Amino acid sequence: MSLDSVLARIDADIEKSTDRLLDLLRIRSISTDPAYAEDCQKAADWLVRDLELLGAVATKRQTPYHPMVVGHVDGAGPHILFYGHYDVQPVDPIELWNRDPFDPAVEQTPKGPVIRGRGSSDDKGQLMTFVEACRAWKAVHGTLPCKITFFFEGEEESGSPSLIPFMKENAAELTSDIVLICDTGLFESKTPAIVTMLRGLLGEEIKITGPNKDLHSGMYGGAAMNPARVLSKILASLHDDQGRITVPNFYDGVHELPDAVADQWRDLNFDHAAFLGDVGLADPAGEVGRSALEMIWSRPTCEINGMTSGYTGEGFKTVLPSYASAKVSFRLVGEQDPFKIREDFRAMVRAMVPADCQVEFLEHGTGPASHMSIDAPEFEAARQALSEEWDIPAAFIGCGGSIPIAGYFQEITGRDPLLIGFGKDDDQLHSPNEKYDMESFHKGIRSWARILDKLAG
Amino acid sequence: MSLDSVLARIDADIEKSTDRLLDLLRIRSISTDPAYAEDCQKAADWLVRDLELLGAVATKRQTPYHPMVVGHVDGAGPHILFYGHYDVQPVDPIELWNRDPFDPAVEQTPKGPVIRGRGSSDDKGQLMTFVEACRAWKAVHGTLPCKITFFFEGEEESGSPSLIPFMKENAAELTSDIVLICDTGLFESKTPAIVTMLRGLLGEEIKITGPNKDLHSGMYGGAAMNPARVLSKILASLHDDQGRITVPNFYDGVHELPDAVADQWRDLNFDHAAFLGDVGLADPAGEVGRSALEMIWSRPTCEINGMTSGYTGEGFKTVLPSYASAKVSFRLVGEQDPFKIREDFRAMVRAMVPADCQVEFLEHGTGPASHMSIDAPEFEAARQALSEEWDIPAAFIGCGGSIPIAGYFQEITGRDPLLIGFGKDDDQLHSPNEKYDMESFHKGIRSWARILDKLAG
Repeated sequence: MSLDSVLARIDADIEKSTDRLLDLLRIRSISTDPAYAEDCQKAADWLVRDLELLGAVATKRQTPYHPMVVGHVDGAGPHILFYGHYDVQPVDPIELWNRDPFDPAVEQTPKGPVIRGRGSSDDKGQLMTFVEACRAWKAVHGTLPCKITFFFEGEEESGSPSLIPFMKENAAELTSDIVLICDTGLFESKTPAIVTMLRGLLGEEIKITGPNKDLHSGMYGGAAMNPARVLSKILASLHDDQGRITVPNFYDGVHELPDAVADQWRDLNFDHAAFLGDVGLADPAGEVGRSALEMIWSRPTCEINGMTSGYTGEGFKTVLPSYASAKVSFRLVGEQDPFKIREDFRAMVRAMVPADCQVEFLEHGTGPASHMSIDAPEFEAARQALSEEWDIPAAFIGCGGSIPIAGYFQEITGRDPLLIGFGKDDDQLHSPNEKYDMESFHKGIRSWARILDKLAG
Repeated sequence: MSLDSVLARIDADIEKSTDRLLDLLRIRSISTDPAYAEDCQKAADWLVRDLELLGAVATKRQTPYHPMVVGHVDGAGPHILFYGHYDVQPVDPIELWNRDPFDPAVEQTPKGPVIRGRGSSDDKGQLMTFVEACRAWKAVHGTLPCKITFFFEGEEESGSPSLIPFMKENAAELTSDIVLICDTGLFESKTPAIVTMLRGLLGEEIKITGPNKDLHSGMYGGAAMNPARVLSKILASLHDDQGRITVPNFYDGVHELPDAVADQWRDLNFDHAAFLGDVGLADPAGEVGRSALEMIWSRPTCEINGMTSGYTGEGFKTVLPSYASAKVSFRLVGEQDPFKIREDFRAMVRAMVPADCQVEFLEHGTGPASHMSIDAPEFEAARQALSEEWDIPAAFIGCGGSIPIAGYFQEITGRDPLLIGFGKDDDQLHSPNEKYDMESFHKGIRSWARILDKLAG
């Protein structure tokens, strides 16, 4: 059977595959720091060469920041576009790493071998699972089972400024029948999963100004309006005592889970005690009566991400602060409209600001929630392929975070992407000692081979 | 008449008096910075020599930090102790000064001549008003009209760590009939005033910890307790909608103003619009139904002096913070007990902290309010002397801030001190371009001569 030969080839070549990944991991492609712009070019060049070895027509495409890599391989079957990103996060604090983050290696750990290094999981290791699956297929069959477009970005860790313009300018070239994105993880580090719900985001910063300078709290305390007090009242008013968000009209467009999805989530037996216990907590803190999975996947949130006012150093200063500010973000679900919510939020805040204070707002991004329709046949095909590889029924899950690329693909190419990845919860993304389990890498490659096999039909 | 001769001598010598003050201002006696310890010794030596010129038996008395200066002059009449401090605040930000802060000079301004330099008002200039009054008296009469003890401190700007131990060890030497303290100002920069009410202080820092590290608000938002939200609720609950403080039993020991004091304060016609307008505000923000003077002098307060949580830099990070902290201070009046209030405050906060959070408290000082009884005859004598010099009825006023030395004198010597000073609201204490009006200096010296004359009886 053709798939079995491919899987056998993957197993036989896993050391070489790992060496190639280590090679890519050595390139310091930190996108947010201009000092590493040359390294981003090098990573793109490396990928172009690697795709050419697969027989792809691959090009590095310059943007105002870091280049995209696009490669095409002709083939029978449906046209598949695969997205990943080759840029990585900065490495600070460097002193917490157990090795040079750009001198990667396979390390043995009590839980099995891991590939340690910056980008091993996010996202070079994940990106290479798909490339290696294609390589094995090509080696066995001489061709690929589908027409494939590889699309690699170098700005994902710095806000993807060039992505939408690039996708719009190259819409025809990037339009495909099926979109695969590999930048997510296994559910609870073990269950293969396809993410079909992503929360949206609204980021807002509020700055309340009272006196025109910091005052002495003895001289003015009691008579002068304290903006930290005003801000506290505003922030405290954002949730009611049932944990619901009080912004007017906030729940417009928030839907109850369909029964089928609710049933499936129940079957996942999510261990919220372990999830919260890992970070020193015990009690789900969201809306009363909701499950922890709902709280992080299907319910909207309002969180204070930062706040500051007055004197925050060591010791004490009896200052009455001139201003107080907070960064607040909302995770959005369903059809919640970030622009409408911004408007209602600002009106609510303005109504709480006394005459002696001014309020300013700063925008920090908006994006609606994304929902993939699982009716398209590729969703069920991928689910079956993943279930077979991992020997656990694969799940359609939500994701509390926001992966804007998913929405961009929906908007620009009109396709609902399949978000499939093999990361684990302890991969230390964005942190020191990032790793990617050898199991994630090896079974990830095998997973893609199985998915290609199903999609080729 | 003997007083007239002294006043004439003061007027004739004002340039020499100013030169002496400029000399003292050149010494960089910044007490909080160990680099200036030698300068503090020099300032103490300078004062010892100057007191000796007055015929005092003066000594520099070492402490673990900076020395005290004590000088005695025998005389008929009551025994008067005069307190001032020779140490000064640091000068940062130095670039905002219009001259070297330790190269002082008399500058002409649209409002009249001023002595510009660090310490000119706080407190070297004020301290020297009394010394110069004694000098003029001695020059005219050969003796002083009272037995006088000069007591100068060098640690006032750095928390006076040696003061209480020194006063206790030398209680017999420092006990007098009357205590004068010169470290305050004119009311509204024009009305001579004796401060008879000082608010106390309780400083507290609250730290609420939730998750054991900063979390990703997408991954955990909604399910994990956010300590910034907990802190906001606590801070927002500290005042009710009438502006009253909600800490249980908080108003125990807070008294209504005696009618006589209330009447006198009304007569001051305090211009709260100007007071608040100076700092960009309009509306007294304290308890509903209280006057602005009550809010800053005779009513207790609770102010947020600082707060911080999560990401507070430029831009945005969707972090769910591990902890949130705030510095909160209470200004106390009447017989409010800072220790009892601390206890009730902490219990109130603890009751609002959910099971998934911990709270820690840090102490930042306690001091009860001080009240001087104005029944002692020296209060009325000084009030008359000041009224005569300034040609405006002098007032017994409150002070929103805390001057711990007043309480120490009450406690250790059993005397209610007279807090009299000549600073103006725009003296820029602790700030760049500190100045002391020549009017404050000159009429300050004359005021003390008149007060000595009255007190000598």
